Amino acid sequence: MIGKEIDRLIKIVAKLPSLGPRSSRRIVLQLLKKKESSMLPLIEALTAVAQNVKTCEICGNYDTISPCSICCSDKKDNALLCVVQDVSDLWAMEKVSLFKGKYHVLGGVLSALDGIAPEDLNIEGLLHRIRKQEIKEVVLALPATVDGQITTHYLLSKLKETEVKVTTLAQGIPMGAELDYMDEGTLQLAFNSRKLL
Amino acid sequence: MIGKEIDRLIKIVAKLPSLGPRSSRRIVLQLLKKKESSMLPLIEALTAVAQNVKTCEICGNYDTISPCSICCSDKKDNALLCVVQDVSDLWAMEKVSLFKGKYHVLGGVLSALDGIAPEDLNIEGLLHRIRKQEIKEVVLALPATVDGQITTHYLLSKLKETEVKVTTLAQGIPMGAELDYMDEGTLQLAFNSRKLL
Repeated sequence: MIGKEIDRLIKIVAKLPSLGPRSSRRIVLQLLKKKESSMLPLIEALTAVAQNVKTCEICGNYDTISPCSICCSDKKDNALLCVVQDVSDLWAMEKVSLFKGKYHVLGGVLSALDGIAPEDLNIEGLLHRIRKQEIKEVVLALPATVDGQITTHYLLSKLKETEVKVTTLAQGIPMGAELDYMDEGTLQLAFNSRKLL
Repeated sequence: MIGKEIDRLIKIVAKLPSLGPRSSRRIVLQLLKKKESSMLPLIEALTAVAQNVKTCEICGNYDTISPCSICCSDKKDNALLCVVQDVSDLWAMEKVSLFKGKYHVLGGVLSALDGIAPEDLNIEGLLHRIRKQEIKEVVLALPATVDGQITTHYLLSKLKETEVKVTTLAQGIPMGAELDYMDEGTLQLAFNSRKLL
């Protein structure tokens, strides 16, 4: 006896990541209760994003312009390039504004299980950028998973043909961590990579 | 360096119930990735709901018509009326289709802490319905909290003036529950209301 339109909206919202049928019902009810202050602004913001946001033709970021504002920025060092798996990683780095170079979004990592081969990722675009632009250092900031490390090694073998310096993020104990809560792999890795004080 | 439009959408989505900045970013990224299959249907469904769904003038339910399809239905017993706190409770009951009567949404419960007085709830509408229609039984299905019970007693005192039969949902041990996981209040209540077999 729930209306057709409402039911359809609940089903669509329930499919979004981190949501399910129950939280979707709560969200739709909240939107219905606060139509003016919540539903209409959401529709407006979604429509603006759907109409204006595109994928940057150079790095793969989402922005209203292409090339995106990071690729166009003159505050960003053209000689530094950070390779990330996904736009979310790019956003995470930009949020703490720790990297002064530009980015390249691969769009995933190699995975035998999920059937993701090199041609499914934006690797050609990366090699093209390195050949064309004056890039001195490429930081491979891929996830510290098995698939991520396989992708890092694959990219390293591809980048050896160029003259570019290739680095990757340091691995070890994260800030504020208790040693006895760390997994064996991380402990061993941090021990093997120990540094002289 | 995240675009203005995207940032605005992330902030709006993060304010929805059960979401925060991190899950909001994940949702917006998913919508951007699957524009055709996810973002556009969502905008369409939201717009349809915003344009067509209204509050039922009789019971307070949300539907595309007012009076709503439950109030208009001839399969629902006019002599039975179930009083609930919120539309979500009405939906929960309709989902298992256990109640054969009609509903009345109060829009909340009395609360000294939140400053919710009888005039903030749709109590006048309830009394009006009972006076006007031929209602034989009113089921008070309000939450089993202190505020809910205070509201139940307040409504009972108001309904004493009418000739209607007033009932409330049974309280006790929920289905499938282990006794040693039950709180003291529920155990005592179930013991005091024990039934002859």
